[in-house]
Amino acid sequence: MSERLVVIGGDAAGMSAASAARRGRGPEELEIVAFERGNHTSYSACGIPYFVGKDVADAGSLIARTPEEFSRKHQIDARTGHEVCSIDLDRRAVLVRDLKAGSEAWEGFDQLMIGTGATPARPSLPGIDAEGIYGVQTLDDGLALRAALEKHPRRAVIVGAGYIGLELAEAMCASGLEVTVVGRGEGPMLPALDADMAGLVTDAVRSFGMTMLLGESVTGFETHDGRVSAVLTGQRSIPADVVVLGLGVLPNTALALDAGIRLGPSGAIAVDGRMRTSAEGVWAAGDCVEKFHRISRRAVRLPLGTYANKEGRTAGINIGGGYATFPGVVGTAAMKICSTEVARTGLGEPEARDAGFEPVSAVVESTTRAGYYPGARPIRTKLIAERGSGRLLGAQIVGEEGAAKRIDVLSVALWHGTTVEELINMDLAYAPPFSPLWDPVLIAARKAWDKVAAIR
Amino acid sequence: MSERLVVIGGDAAGMSAASAARRGRGPEELEIVAFERGNHTSYSACGIPYFVGKDVADAGSLIARTPEEFSRKHQIDARTGHEVCSIDLDRRAVLVRDLKAGSEAWEGFDQLMIGTGATPARPSLPGIDAEGIYGVQTLDDGLALRAALEKHPRRAVIVGAGYIGLELAEAMCASGLEVTVVGRGEGPMLPALDADMAGLVTDAVRSFGMTMLLGESVTGFETHDGRVSAVLTGQRSIPADVVVLGLGVLPNTALALDAGIRLGPSGAIAVDGRMRTSAEGVWAAGDCVEKFHRISRRAVRLPLGTYANKEGRTAGINIGGGYATFPGVVGTAAMKICSTEVARTGLGEPEARDAGFEPVSAVVESTTRAGYYPGARPIRTKLIAERGSGRLLGAQIVGEEGAAKRIDVLSVALWHGTTVEELINMDLAYAPPFSPLWDPVLIAARKAWDKVAAIR
Repeated sequence: MSERLVVIGGDAAGMSAASAARRGRGPEELEIVAFERGNHTSYSACGIPYFVGKDVADAGSLIARTPEEFSRKHQIDARTGHEVCSIDLDRRAVLVRDLKAGSEAWEGFDQLMIGTGATPARPSLPGIDAEGIYGVQTLDDGLALRAALEKHPRRAVIVGAGYIGLELAEAMCASGLEVTVVGRGEGPMLPALDADMAGLVTDAVRSFGMTMLLGESVTGFETHDGRVSAVLTGQRSIPADVVVLGLGVLPNTALALDAGIRLGPSGAIAVDGRMRTSAEGVWAAGDCVEKFHRISRRAVRLPLGTYANKEGRTAGINIGGGYATFPGVVGTAAMKICSTEVARTGLGEPEARDAGFEPVSAVVESTTRAGYYPGARPIRTKLIAERGSGRLLGAQIVGEEGAAKRIDVLSVALWHGTTVEELINMDLAYAPPFSPLWDPVLIAARKAWDKVAAIR
Repeated sequence: MSERLVVIGGDAAGMSAASAARRGRGPEELEIVAFERGNHTSYSACGIPYFVGKDVADAGSLIARTPEEFSRKHQIDARTGHEVCSIDLDRRAVLVRDLKAGSEAWEGFDQLMIGTGATPARPSLPGIDAEGIYGVQTLDDGLALRAALEKHPRRAVIVGAGYIGLELAEAMCASGLEVTVVGRGEGPMLPALDADMAGLVTDAVRSFGMTMLLGESVTGFETHDGRVSAVLTGQRSIPADVVVLGLGVLPNTALALDAGIRLGPSGAIAVDGRMRTSAEGVWAAGDCVEKFHRISRRAVRLPLGTYANKEGRTAGINIGGGYATFPGVVGTAAMKICSTEVARTGLGEPEARDAGFEPVSAVVESTTRAGYYPGARPIRTKLIAERGSGRLLGAQIVGEEGAAKRIDVLSVALWHGTTVEELINMDLAYAPPFSPLWDPVLIAARKAWDKVAAIR
């Protein structure tokens, strides 16, 4: 007998699940309907800063698949402009509002996949609803911001010095605006980076001609005729024609919570390894669920597109009658601001302490290619290891072109519980255009091992 | 009481060992003398093609440390122009010839480190000793070849289509010569690459305007007034003003063998994990020793600079009174020819079969960055896995800028015995400037796992 899968959310997690479920079960076995409240399905949210900064000319190129493609190629009925307002587990139905028509209807399901994602934090500060203040989460947000830049604003203020904030700072800078980044913490990208590595990012951002204000909280916005004119912090007023909010995101859990589905200790939806929620036949994946961190061994919220896709695929394989598990994360992430590349994986020093480890760390400066080879760029690599065992706990990289993706070596090593001693002899590729003879990662491992092995 | 360490060979293995031994034991405890028959110590042999092709202007920048630096900074007495002619294990002495003075003398040792390296194969073909035929192993070879290019030769023939051959083909091409590469095998870089991946390299080389002749063995050289004028194969005569030999290398084992030191099944010097040879107090490292291959579980000859450095360091730590082991290799290597990057690790399909595995493979085409991001370049990734277990056995990558170093992820995964199923969910870094959302490595893992899991 045919079943019906309802998917809430038409982005990475939801549509990955839908596609994987379809691979497992054909249309005669499984009807799939996906509801997306926005106007687009399956687009690269991570690409929005590059669309805003015009590295990517056309918003269409960020869209992996349109609803028409899902329908035609996969027999998946993806309905944009439809918001799910409620889940009724007893009736096995969701209440769906057609945002254009303004009508509501109950849609029944046998299996339910929750991919509601996360929403950017938007603190209730005076003036926050003024014109000229942009969040950047959806493609529509990106379109609005890029349209605003066509009016040649002069000064941009980025509120928040995390990944998205810095990527948007690059986009604003590339568009010729004077850019000020305001961050609450003592460095950018905390706690993803340790303070010493964050300091390198601060130096880089300033060297690109941007202003970076740290340890300042935004208290409100000055407005003029309903438009933002300045950003206020405890210390100053920063004139602004455009403001972009990059304050992180919060998981969209209300629908699940209201339906009685269990949240985990991190505050996101709790799932098992197969992406099942606490409710029978209800699955969840992506930014709205918590993940198991393989190093801290805790449930964490880490809203990254790679996890959403992998988790969605896992849920979909299971919904489609297969078997798959998602084995957790080690917290790998990377970003670029202008010519500076930043990457991290595992735990930073404070995070390691917080998780009960006694960390030692080593930082080395090297180059991305053999020092004598054209295009060799600086790379600074930090490794964090456990004193006593020498087990690798985390790594951070700040450098220039060719630096960031080296973090993957450390991610895979972390995944396997490798010690920095073992890492020293790992068989990494060498040729002068690609690396110094001793890869920076291996030099860092040598230095970290010397520290691990030393008497305090 | 003070001991004396004699090092044979002043390059990667020998001087890494000397330096590491010095870190362990100061000059009052350990006297260190290194004999090098060439004119230079510790230079990047891998950099020679880039010096020849003028990416590197100055030969001096390839030299990591001069004998003067070893003497001043490390109290290591490194003597160039000194060849060790014989090892007498009973007398605990080596016979050393001063190549300039023409004199010989016995030098005693307590510990002996053999880092004699390897010598390029130079088949005894008619005409091989003609002027204009170059081997490229030592820095002096590189200087000679670069000097030859100053005379504006027109046509270069590279004999051998392996790593060195192709790197030198790039150098010749960059110097404006018409280049023909002649390879004995049906593809370049066999058996390091499988035939399908080698085919991509052939296509690339030809697209750069070079001629690639495959399946042709060189039978001799035509000469004119003592200078080479053409390269002869069974099929044709190829006019040549400059010929470069890139036919691989053979380990220099004669000294060790004559002294009664045991060779291993691969024909190179046998060592244990600490780099001890079969003779008490005699250590060896680098191209002259065999390595344990962690995937085939066989002793292999793999003359790579990274191994020489790591093995030398291992020997030196042990000589210096510490403890270290070299845990073997997985056969990772990378090279660039013009804009094409090539990398490999582990076993290819024929190698896997030969080692007793039943391999399945998957090849995927993707891009080095998000498809919509500027500078995204093609990358083809091949994974080889064991049918049944799904264990990763090897990987090969051919692509453009940003492709090759991705092999390291697979090298570390191989090292740990990872399956392609587990690889699918590895936490690799993503941001549009660095990778598609699904990293090419992970897409390949998905495809390989589908094949592993399928009924035949």
